[in-house]
Amino acid sequence: MSTDDVLALAARVEPADADAAAGAASRLASLATPPGALGRLGRLAGRLAGATGTCPPPPFERARVLVFAGDHGVHAQGVSPWPQAVSAAMADAVASGRAGVSAIAAATDVEVTVVDVGLATPLPDDHEVVEARVVPGTEDASERDAMSREDAAAAVLVGARIADEAMDDGVELLVTGDLGIANTTTSAALVAICAGRPASEVTGRGTGIDDEMLATKTGVVERIVERVPDGADGLGVLAAVGGAEHAAIAGMVLAGAARRVPVVLDGLIADAAALVAARLSSDVVDHVVAGHLSTEPGAAVALAQLGLLPVLDLDLRLGEGSGGVLAVPVVRAASRVLRDVATLEELGF
Amino acid sequence: MSTDDVLALAARVEPADADAAAGAASRLASLATPPGALGRLGRLAGRLAGATGTCPPPPFERARVLVFAGDHGVHAQGVSPWPQAVSAAMADAVASGRAGVSAIAAATDVEVTVVDVGLATPLPDDHEVVEARVVPGTEDASERDAMSREDAAAAVLVGARIADEAMDDGVELLVTGDLGIANTTTSAALVAICAGRPASEVTGRGTGIDDEMLATKTGVVERIVERVPDGADGLGVLAAVGGAEHAAIAGMVLAGAARRVPVVLDGLIADAAALVAARLSSDVVDHVVAGHLSTEPGAAVALAQLGLLPVLDLDLRLGEGSGGVLAVPVVRAASRVLRDVATLEELGF
Repeated sequence: MSTDDVLALAARVEPADADAAAGAASRLASLATPPGALGRLGRLAGRLAGATGTCPPPPFERARVLVFAGDHGVHAQGVSPWPQAVSAAMADAVASGRAGVSAIAAATDVEVTVVDVGLATPLPDDHEVVEARVVPGTEDASERDAMSREDAAAAVLVGARIADEAMDDGVELLVTGDLGIANTTTSAALVAICAGRPASEVTGRGTGIDDEMLATKTGVVERIVERVPDGADGLGVLAAVGGAEHAAIAGMVLAGAARRVPVVLDGLIADAAALVAARLSSDVVDHVVAGHLSTEPGAAVALAQLGLLPVLDLDLRLGEGSGGVLAVPVVRAASRVLRDVATLEELGF
Repeated sequence: MSTDDVLALAARVEPADADAAAGAASRLASLATPPGALGRLGRLAGRLAGATGTCPPPPFERARVLVFAGDHGVHAQGVSPWPQAVSAAMADAVASGRAGVSAIAAATDVEVTVVDVGLATPLPDDHEVVEARVVPGTEDASERDAMSREDAAAAVLVGARIADEAMDDGVELLVTGDLGIANTTTSAALVAICAGRPASEVTGRGTGIDDEMLATKTGVVERIVERVPDGADGLGVLAAVGGAEHAAIAGMVLAGAARRVPVVLDGLIADAAALVAARLSSDVVDHVVAGHLSTEPGAAVALAQLGLLPVLDLDLRLGEGSGGVLAVPVVRAASRVLRDVATLEELGF
């Protein structure tokens, strides 16, 4: 049973290694830098040591963003001006290196893998997207469950498998990515359910919708929240709300955490998926880094719930993993500080 | 006369290229990303196009931080717990790749050059620091002028020359760096003078001094501000307050701007130097990027005066160019977005 496999995966996640984190704090205090001068970079270095269980943590030279693509039945409610076919077209654009995240990944030396975990329309010929479709788009979560519990578990396991393949290949740092027209609607619903907040507080303009469509979208999120009141059961919430990419991201987060490979979260969609992953294993939070603060209002709510401070705050709302990828150099720098900087003693002071 | 050469350099700086900036805005609007979704990354791309006068701007693969080292006569007033000899030792540590900025530069693929423009103590044997000492540390600016006007001009020209050598070598992006015990004191004074703000508002704890030393330091900044009331004359302020590294950074900013190579500012010391550079050429502001917001209170005052939003805000106060170097991947990504991302039309929408 896929659902049993998900629970077994979650059970493999352990909390931060206190010894490694303490070793990082001790090393930081001995460095030839004024106490506290490294600010949040120093605190990030400590978290990375705790997450990986090593001090210093690895240099994270091999980093890979996994972009999971899915479609959403709530699209039928008129929550986005874009047709669903845009999801498949953008998956192809990312895989062929022509999208926003492609450019940012090229600038930061991050590998890109795109995975169809639940698109509703066919991919173009000759694409480079990994085919792992679990559902052909989800059902309309404002009217019924988005997926079966078994499909939700299968999507979680797709995310875990793709993450495992990356780690088997030597990747030291994972970054979440996502694609899917209407996925800010289901993300907002996931945040509202998991954080116990009203739809109006977590619903935003996504790709830039107008006031009228925002009102429609907020109403759709309200209906999902009314239909799915219980947030305690992670797989149940994923099945009820979707999408397949949220499930896959939850799976990659669990798989990274289980093997002590840190996972950098991109924006709202990943923050929502991480909230659900934390229902499956509360220790998962020790293994994730919030890459940036999306301007979507649900992102700040989700990060506050997770207790995470974002690395970057650049008013981004592009998705695709872009903000997570952009944070990778900071993560690498934090680790290199622990590895490379001399101590005061080594410099003869 | 060095002073004439400085004025000639400043006169070569031109404002942002409006055509290139407009081309960037037009290109951004046509990309396969939702309008505004790139947030501040998109606006940074537009600034880089305007600064370089090209759209798309170069990919900024070759970036170099120039770390200018100097000592400060105000050290005698008890504004820092560290002896002046630490400045030379840290210059050597940076040049040999063992300091904080070294680790961050290694993680972000940024070259490092360290320049002695005004240290007070000898460098160790077998160092890799570029020797261009103009003064053996400055005079005590709380009692008399830190340098002659001629020495200040010579230090500006050292900065310009090292920047020119980098650009001749193919460097496409410059980053400011600095080293010098007590240089947050003179930086605070420069900001207070140029921004017309009281010492108490711009003076901070530097390497982490206690309340008593902070009171002493604030008093020293007050005495400098009382002694040097006129901020209109850039070279005059540099000579009166120092240090040699502020002058060199002003020179590198002017030299980069004159050749349309953008300059990323690190923290307080660079922000103060950029304020002075803007006195020499008001167009220089179009060519600089604020790398991060230092926790030193004078930094926010200086950036507001310059009208610049910092790229990063990570509670850093390490100096050495560290925060500027950490912002380089974001600058590269902004440029790559303009270069690499397909337009909606190219994707067939």
